[in-house]
Amino acid sequence: MDGSQVLELSSTQYETVYNLLSLAIASLGFTGLYLVLSQRRVLPRYRNAVVVSAMVVFIATYHYVRIFTNFKESYQTDAQGGQGVYKLTNIVFNEGYRYVDWLLTVPLLLVETVAVLALAASVQKSLLAKLVPASALMIALGYPGEISADTGTRLLWGTLSTIPFLYILYVLFVELTASIERQPQDVKGTISKLRLMLIGLWGVYPIAYLFPVLGFDGSNAFVLKQAGYTFADIFAKAAFGLVIFKIARLKSQYDDPTFAALDSHDDVAAEPGTGSRAARV
Amino acid sequence: MDGSQVLELSSTQYETVYNLLSLAIASLGFTGLYLVLSQRRVLPRYRNAVVVSAMVVFIATYHYVRIFTNFKESYQTDAQGGQGVYKLTNIVFNEGYRYVDWLLTVPLLLVETVAVLALAASVQKSLLAKLVPASALMIALGYPGEISADTGTRLLWGTLSTIPFLYILYVLFVELTASIERQPQDVKGTISKLRLMLIGLWGVYPIAYLFPVLGFDGSNAFVLKQAGYTFADIFAKAAFGLVIFKIARLKSQYDDPTFAALDSHDDVAAEPGTGSRAARV
Repeated sequence: MDGSQVLELSSTQYETVYNLLSLAIASLGFTGLYLVLSQRRVLPRYRNAVVVSAMVVFIATYHYVRIFTNFKESYQTDAQGGQGVYKLTNIVFNEGYRYVDWLLTVPLLLVETVAVLALAASVQKSLLAKLVPASALMIALGYPGEISADTGTRLLWGTLSTIPFLYILYVLFVELTASIERQPQDVKGTISKLRLMLIGLWGVYPIAYLFPVLGFDGSNAFVLKQAGYTFADIFAKAAFGLVIFKIARLKSQYDDPTFAALDSHDDVAAEPGTGSRAARV
Repeated sequence: MDGSQVLELSSTQYETVYNLLSLAIASLGFTGLYLVLSQRRVLPRYRNAVVVSAMVVFIATYHYVRIFTNFKESYQTDAQGGQGVYKLTNIVFNEGYRYVDWLLTVPLLLVETVAVLALAASVQKSLLAKLVPASALMIALGYPGEISADTGTRLLWGTLSTIPFLYILYVLFVELTASIERQPQDVKGTISKLRLMLIGLWGVYPIAYLFPVLGFDGSNAFVLKQAGYTFADIFAKAAFGLVIFKIARLKSQYDDPTFAALDSHDDVAAEPGTGSRAARV
């Protein structure tokens, strides 16, 4: 029951959303393939973080394929070359895809983050026991506001959803900050970057959510919201996954320098015989 | 809002573009599969260059599948057996796909080129910090001209886009030339070929961009432009990726002759025992 749908888009608005959705499919999908193909470049103990990162971007790819197809069906024009007004057809433009995606991917993003920190198993478990239910609550509370045409309803549910959102960021920020102390020197900078990415990128979602109540007219608010969610998903999932991969590489290098040397150009001259060990990796 | 779309294509023109787009899907897609399946034939330190090359052609394959489907929807005829005039339908023929593709693949082409040269990590980083933003600028500046029906607008944005384009070619040419000195003897010729490919193939893009203002009529210019972009993509991505793979093989051979001997016909007779080690790779 989505009363917030906009009735018309201009051809520029249509093409902007259309190209952004396709950009998301390509960036998310091939980041996933890259992570899967590169998992052997990290030590076995970090591979789960990399594979879970790949699952996150693959799940998002699936949903963007659905959203892209759905968008093309929901908005259509009769004008030649598509250079006219795009009208909402009899097909609902389903914002539910995004919420289902987040319900699956946000807990997994938390799992990959906690996994790459290589905390003790008991600490991982207690962290995830706090974060995962909070993330489910955050997403479930956002949805009724997302599909409402009423500003008050949108703000009410948005505010409720912000409570678990801030709780998650607080717990993660505190935990990442505490963990930086315990990390090898080379990894500290990258984990610090991960902490900033979390705050900066996750912060885009509530802003995008608020575009429809920030004074933009219906179709502009729609385009800004779709663009905000799409860029946030690309960076918070694909770019974030690549940073997780980088941390896993740096920690592999720290844990086992001979493993990393195989994969480094800097050591080519110094360790000519390492190629044979590669066969066993 | 793409005002540069042509309204009609002859059946010959339609079939030419249609077959070229399908050729691109096949050449790009299976080059990627070949690279993925062959990555173990290079030393671990060169595998990232090969995997990134595979990602480039896979991303391009995705976009050619979209372009092919889009083209079939955008131009249609009522004539039996398709032997009539193809008219532009109500579906925009979206040149945005090519620009989104380039936005993702050109930086990755730069990454694979720099990766296979095996420069020190700090040099790689500083090179990419110059080249990647320049490539994004080059592509972003080209797009407004691409979708404009106005010759002056096309030339203006085309000229602006040429500035970062020439900068990238200059930096890469200088860097490749400098790197040739440091490469093993057997690799020098291939890197020199890579340098020529960059200049020669990347030069096709601006020529294709200019077809619509070079005095060809609308539909001929459209076909020439699509053919130019498509051939340039096939050679600058698929053929280029295979040359990257060849360089990675030659350098693996140089770094670790025993690794390379497993994969060479020349040494089979000379080293009868090596076959068994191959089984472990």
